[in-house]
Amino acid sequence: MGTVITLTTDFGTSDAYVAAMKGVILGINPEARLVDICHTIEPQNIAQAAYILGTVYEFFPRRSIHVVVVDPGVGTGRKPVILRTPEADFMAPDNGVLSYVIEKYSIQPVDSRQAKLDTTKAAAIHLTESKFWLEEVRPTFHGRDIFAPVAAHLSLGTQPGEFGEAVDSLVVLPSLKPRRESDGTIMGQVLHIDRFGNLITSIKESDLPGNTEELIIDINGRQINGIVKTYADSGDLCALIGSSGYLEIALPDGSAADITGASAGDAVRVRTP
Amino acid sequence: MGTVITLTTDFGTSDAYVAAMKGVILGINPEARLVDICHTIEPQNIAQAAYILGTVYEFFPRRSIHVVVVDPGVGTGRKPVILRTPEADFMAPDNGVLSYVIEKYSIQPVDSRQAKLDTTKAAAIHLTESKFWLEEVRPTFHGRDIFAPVAAHLSLGTQPGEFGEAVDSLVVLPSLKPRRESDGTIMGQVLHIDRFGNLITSIKESDLPGNTEELIIDINGRQINGIVKTYADSGDLCALIGSSGYLEIALPDGSAADITGASAGDAVRVRTP
Amino acid sequence: MGTVITLTTDFGTSDAYVAAMKGVILGINPEARLVDICHTIEPQNIAQAAYILGTVYEFFPRRSIHVVVVDPGVGTGRKPVILRTPEADFMAPDNGVLSYVIEKYSIQPVDSRQAKLDTTKAAAIHLTESKFWLEEVRPTFHGRDIFAPVAAHLSLGTQPGEFGEAVDSLVVLPSLKPRRESDGTIMGQVLHIDRFGNLITSIKESDLPGNTEELIIDINGRQINGIVKTYADSGDLCALIGSSGYLEIALPDGSAADITGASAGDAVRVRTP
Repeated sequence: MGTVITLTTDFGTSDAYVAAMKGVILGINPEARLVDICHTIEPQNIAQAAYILGTVYEFFPRRSIHVVVVDPGVGTGRKPVILRTPEADFMAPDNGVLSYVIEKYSIQPVDSRQAKLDTTKAAAIHLTESKFWLEEVRPTFHGRDIFAPVAAHLSLGTQPGEFGEAVDSLVVLPSLKPRRESDGTIMGQVLHIDRFGNLITSIKESDLPGNTEELIIDINGRQINGIVKTYADSGDLCALIGSSGYLEIALPDGSAADITGASAGDAVRVRTP
Repeated sequence: MGTVITLTTDFGTSDAYVAAMKGVILGINPEARLVDICHTIEPQNIAQAAYILGTVYEFFPRRSIHVVVVDPGVGTGRKPVILRTPEADFMAPDNGVLSYVIEKYSIQPVDSRQAKLDTTKAAAIHLTESKFWLEEVRPTFHGRDIFAPVAAHLSLGTQPGEFGEAVDSLVVLPSLKPRRESDGTIMGQVLHIDRFGNLITSIKESDLPGNTEELIIDINGRQINGIVKTYADSGDLCALIGSSGYLEIALPDGSAADITGASAGDAVRVRTP
Repeated sequence: MGTVITLTTDFGTSDAYVAAMKGVILGINPEARLVDICHTIEPQNIAQAAYILGTVYEFFPRRSIHVVVVDPGVGTGRKPVILRTPEADFMAPDNGVLSYVIEKYSIQPVDSRQAKLDTTKAAAIHLTESKFWLEEVRPTFHGRDIFAPVAAHLSLGTQPGEFGEAVDSLVVLPSLKPRRESDGTIMGQVLHIDRFGNLITSIKESDLPGNTEELIIDINGRQINGIVKTYADSGDLCALIGSSGYLEIALPDGSAADITGASAGDAVRVRTP
């Protein structure tokens, strides 16, 4: 049975870009198990890709390889990297797209001549060894020409250290963590709007005080009283803890995004009465 | 070679919801063969999902597992169920989404202590055994937390009766079968509009009288004379038997939906001159 | 490990048409490795499908089977065919959709009684042997009823000659190759617009004279000076060689299609100052 390799890109589904990556991977490791996470990340939206990956990678088998190609700086100086954590491997341009993963670990400088990285700590490798790449590397498509072949070789057991030089740190996006005011009010923002028009906020369940039924949520001039358990508990705009553990604002049988006019980045406030 | 597990949802393709289900399944059964049927079911449109599943499941290998998550009542009293038929297994919320499958069978009450169901009759099980679920079940995402792990265990050979209690009947949507008037006119409706703008109606080939070349089809004030064999037989709005055996209204090199202004639910009438 | 079978269609992703093909294939060859190339080819746009396939097939493993179903003439006289080349097999209606592949080969007439084709030359077979098809062939869905089962049998080792009669030539679209004027100006056109709004032209890297930094590109009344290496080298409308080796017009952080108003078929001119 082959290693799982997941793909997250902003390539869309109307071109053959994603398929080209898959063709390259299967040419090197015909047993790889390819799984699409999302290919409709807004073009070059690093924060959205980071969030989408962050909500899903922990549900995959241990030692899956997660490849993320949202890469506005392709062909320039930004580094293509592997991040090895105790649970999985990640491959991406070093532009912040792995922020939610990196947040959980301190990256350990490793001796890159030591090919086999310790799987109990996170480590990062800058991909420099071109012998693992396609023969011709186009400056506009590292997904196909660098990331895909390296992911395939990694899935066959090549050790991360063989692909390049260790790096001590990776780019992390400015924190999206909510802020707590002196009066206890929690200030967060809308991170993502899903297909149902649900507003997923940056406020996690663990950020909230105990009695969630009494909380007041403010979003774009609207006020929501208390947090419910499921979409169907309320016929009106409501707040609940979504499937990824974040506070979510939803409208049963409708779109919370439409009714509030909210978009990613808008402020969300949680307070006690 | 692994069991085929198909997925039909209204989760869309711009979030990682579908990928999360796949990650959970592959964590339990790394050999599962995952196939997407459709993830762009209109949000919470149970009838559309029922129709889409109904047109396709018979083309899959015997004993495939078909998972359908269109689930407006997620987190409420509606039952998550397995339906075992002689050909395949189905998993879905008990909300009518399996109507086209159920129509073909009478469900046999089974002794749920008897773990192995008879595969020559249809039987249904209410999923209650939480030991097969993810440790933390979010009330908003049973697809990932209940259906995905149960489907994976089912694909590994766990018997349906081990997942819960037998139920005697499942929810079926009000019949979409066409009605025959006293003068022989057949009254049906538009079930679905496909990507080409073809109008797929609820009238099956077997509902039509013998001489189909003489029939008159009425849709939104337009009249079509006779049924052709293929799209290319006519340059104008035409009627033919589509690939799923239903009467279909098409416009070669154009969209029948655009030209007629028809939408799902609109009346279609078939009569003799 | 199973043979790779790729699928390229204009079926979209909101119906179960693609899934039906996959179900049929897996029923015959449960080990087949299915890969989606693109299913959102513009309805019945043969040229677009030909281009998309042309950019990607060479990245797949040798002896992959590429199935293309963009088929406005389905159910009429157009021939369903297999094209065997030294590298891969292709299956499609004979309507020009394989043009970019055929361009590379001269098709060799073969003795169709000789079941095993020479894999060092290209050969074409008209699919006529209905014993390999689904029992019931709907005139509107040869993708499911003819192409899918034949692809599955081909992947199991049935020789092309067993599926039908050899043909000496296949339909090729009028050439999209650029024209060189007497003064050295190269006249090409926009072939395709990708998700990022990049305009991919019919002018290949090899069509250009040596000093590309001095070239002037004209598109829809706009003039671009010189060809850059990567998207990030320029903040303005720019020209570069894209990932498939074609001259491409791009707007970093924006859409070249929007800013130029260009669409497929529009003229592109490359000249020296």
